[in-house]
Amino acid sequence: MIVADNLHVMQPAFARALEKLDPVPVRAMVRECLRLGAQALDINPGPLPRQPEERMAFLVETVQTLTDLPLLLDTVNAAAMAAGLNACRGRTIINGFSLEPSKLERMLPLARDYDAEIIGYLLHPNSQVPIDETEMMELAVALFGAYTKAGLDPNRLIIDPVVAPLSWQDGARHNRAVLKVIGSLDDLLGVPVRTIAGISNLASGPVPTARKVELERAFLPMLAAAGLDIALTNVRHTETVETAVICNSLLGEHLFAWAKQGKGPDAPGI
Amino acid sequence: MIVADNLHVMQPAFARALEKLDPVPVRAMVRECLRLGAQALDINPGPLPRQPEERMAFLVETVQTLTDLPLLLDTVNAAAMAAGLNACRGRTIINGFSLEPSKLERMLPLARDYDAEIIGYLLHPNSQVPIDETEMMELAVALFGAYTKAGLDPNRLIIDPVVAPLSWQDGARHNRAVLKVIGSLDDLLGVPVRTIAGISNLASGPVPTARKVELERAFLPMLAAAGLDIALTNVRHTETVETAVICNSLLGEHLFAWAKQGKGPDAPGI
Repeated sequence: MIVADNLHVMQPAFARALEKLDPVPVRAMVRECLRLGAQALDINPGPLPRQPEERMAFLVETVQTLTDLPLLLDTVNAAAMAAGLNACRGRTIINGFSLEPSKLERMLPLARDYDAEIIGYLLHPNSQVPIDETEMMELAVALFGAYTKAGLDPNRLIIDPVVAPLSWQDGARHNRAVLKVIGSLDDLLGVPVRTIAGISNLASGPVPTARKVELERAFLPMLAAAGLDIALTNVRHTETVETAVICNSLLGEHLFAWAKQGKGPDAPGI
Repeated sequence: MIVADNLHVMQPAFARALEKLDPVPVRAMVRECLRLGAQALDINPGPLPRQPEERMAFLVETVQTLTDLPLLLDTVNAAAMAAGLNACRGRTIINGFSLEPSKLERMLPLARDYDAEIIGYLLHPNSQVPIDETEMMELAVALFGAYTKAGLDPNRLIIDPVVAPLSWQDGARHNRAVLKVIGSLDDLLGVPVRTIAGISNLASGPVPTARKVELERAFLPMLAAAGLDIALTNVRHTETVETAVICNSLLGEHLFAWAKQGKGPDAPGI
């Protein structure tokens, strides 16, 4: 349910550790995420222009010295992705692909090759963010079509409708459409499809932390009630993590739960 | 959007003031509600077995010495309701009626006689609370039918789907159905109908205030995203009130707004 997005190249300590291949700061960050309630970890080293395989393998191996939690591998670099998948021992999720041609060509095949779950973003082929519900629905149908055409199991797809920063001109409108889409995807696609949303997107950039947390605490219950399965979030925002727990008590454990992935006959256990 | 439920007979200071017809404590409570962001006030003196007219008129007149905000008159005593309506100078909302025969006979006609808005509860005729969505929808259709059969304007009806305490065995299930019903009423009834929900119901009784506030802060965004128009809440829970404001910034002002009542051609301004 709660995936930590803290292992991110925009975090200076993480970027430095990645540069030096120093496992000590990475382990400290992982320990903190575990303590703060992360149920999975997103590993985002950026595009990794240099030594992509070595660096991604280093990160996966370092994280795995401390935890068997599911890992989301979050890079646009396909070589790094393959190396990370190769290094993973447990449940792994590719984060992710979209209708962008290079993603369809290079990322989607990795899901089959490594029998991994994969996250698909609702973005236009040119990576533009859709604004309204109709656009998002069309993209979801096209994305799902590309995924199943590749012979992959719908139970192993997770859709990310892409939360927009509220600072964008159409941010609030976009995010209202995100709520509708999350609630409509199962009917639209004819099969239950899990969803993930990046809560930190709401207020990225120079927004005071207290304001970020306020927005996250209010938006997360909206996402949860719409049927969101997985929240990708900064677990240092402890009130946001607590809100996720409260959402479960309000909605019943089964509704806003990572465990929903267990539904599919081939879905791996955590 | 935010209606204070603080002027309630279960509040000892309010009950004592009502008993003695002492305006001083009532005025202090009203001032506090105004300071804390109330946009309307619910006046709930209980069933008023003695001197119902005098007591309700006293309350309305006392409140009106301080504010012109809309007033919700909240009593099962029809004589008190009529006296309160008689005393009201501004926008007034009868809170409320249901399919219970005595309510249909005594409360509903007051909405016509005093040209007041009225809240209709989704309850069975025997006052039992429905559990699932289907039951709630059937009750909404029946309630709306009884209301329009009385010749009243759909723009002046507000539906309360009745939030259940989470301590009830089926409380979480009931409240999930409440969210669905709020999102479906307009389609079901064929006209836009406003909704109200009593947030304090979630955790009534001996629950620590911090826990109450946590639950309210998580449930209110769910209600707001579903399309709730009016939240009836304890405005001393300042974080709950702040959450309502944040919900508006997330959803856009027009979605979770008291002002929606202005839609109807005959709806009075505030």
